[in-house]
Amino acid sequence: MDFDKYIAQVQDFPKKGILFYDITPLLLNPGAYAQACDALAERVGEYNPQAIVSPEARGFFFGIPVAMRLGVPFLPIRKKGKLPRQTLEAKYDLEYGSDALYVHKDDIKVFKHIAVVDDILATGGTAKAMCSLAESLGNEVACCAFLMELEFLNGRSKLENKNVISLISPK
Amino acid sequence: MDFDKYIAQVQDFPKKGILFYDITPLLLNPGAYAQACDALAERVGEYNPQAIVSPEARGFFFGIPVAMRLGVPFLPIRKKGKLPRQTLEAKYDLEYGSDALYVHKDDIKVFKHIAVVDDILATGGTAKAMCSLAESLGNEVACCAFLMELEFLNGRSKLENKNVISLISPK
Repeated sequence: MDFDKYIAQVQDFPKKGILFYDITPLLLNPGAYAQACDALAERVGEYNPQAIVSPEARGFFFGIPVAMRLGVPFLPIRKKGKLPRQTLEAKYDLEYGSDALYVHKDDIKVFKHIAVVDDILATGGTAKAMCSLAESLGNEVACCAFLMELEFLNGRSKLENKNVISLISPK
Repeated sequence: MDFDKYIAQVQDFPKKGILFYDITPLLLNPGAYAQACDALAERVGEYNPQAIVSPEARGFFFGIPVAMRLGVPFLPIRKKGKLPRQTLEAKYDLEYGSDALYVHKDDIKVFKHIAVVDDILATGGTAKAMCSLAESLGNEVACCAFLMELEFLNGRSKLENKNVISLISPK
């Protein structure tokens, strides 16, 4: 299926000069959304992950359905102050300054082999931070999977020798 | 199924004196998570909504699976600055100050009959704001559905004559 037609391109968001890829039209088309999640789950399933790890909030759009299709636990990665139990932190660079992601430490440590799922691979900063959360406890990242990959930003290079999956790339 | 055992109670989060109900253990138990979503979808489905509306980020844990089970569109409600196209805003009161939620205007206006889904009904402020986003365009809220209802906060009273569904309440 051509999932591209369910991605809206919005010029100058969140600021002038940026072309934003809005995946929310896909969520409004139940058949296409389910097919995209089926396709992602099939690819991710080849790596037999013990759990799916996704960042808030757009990562949940794909991580949750993939986890449910594979019948494995879903582990949310969140921003500061959202998770109530003991967390691990991973900082990552933004264009200006930095941000951080958090995971419940007691939860991630039980999974030796996890898959990272997100909506879009852009510069790779978020995905790399998620990998570092898992790997800091000695766990292995089986694969990193995305609905869409913005190849011109070369995020794949930040993920070095990881297995990277993406269903579509903008033309 | 007794879903209560998959909810962790965390004292003094996010601040002293608050007992926080952490639903993330449910997400780590694929069978129980799927059953909770099945049960919610069955109850919500009785109202035949044309779309499911849920707030970021925890609302997505239940809104997405319910929308997929019912085969209807999923419409995310987000915080400021996250949605790239024209939005509608609904402000709501917090204990100190206020916050706001946003939805893509062109998307919500096509659904005459929507269901609101979230993880927890607490004071009802978020749910009421989501209802007002739909109703401001003349659409109808078929029901408001939650995994858990904190009855002692009486959020149901803010939802007045809405159909309110919840699967569990803490003892």
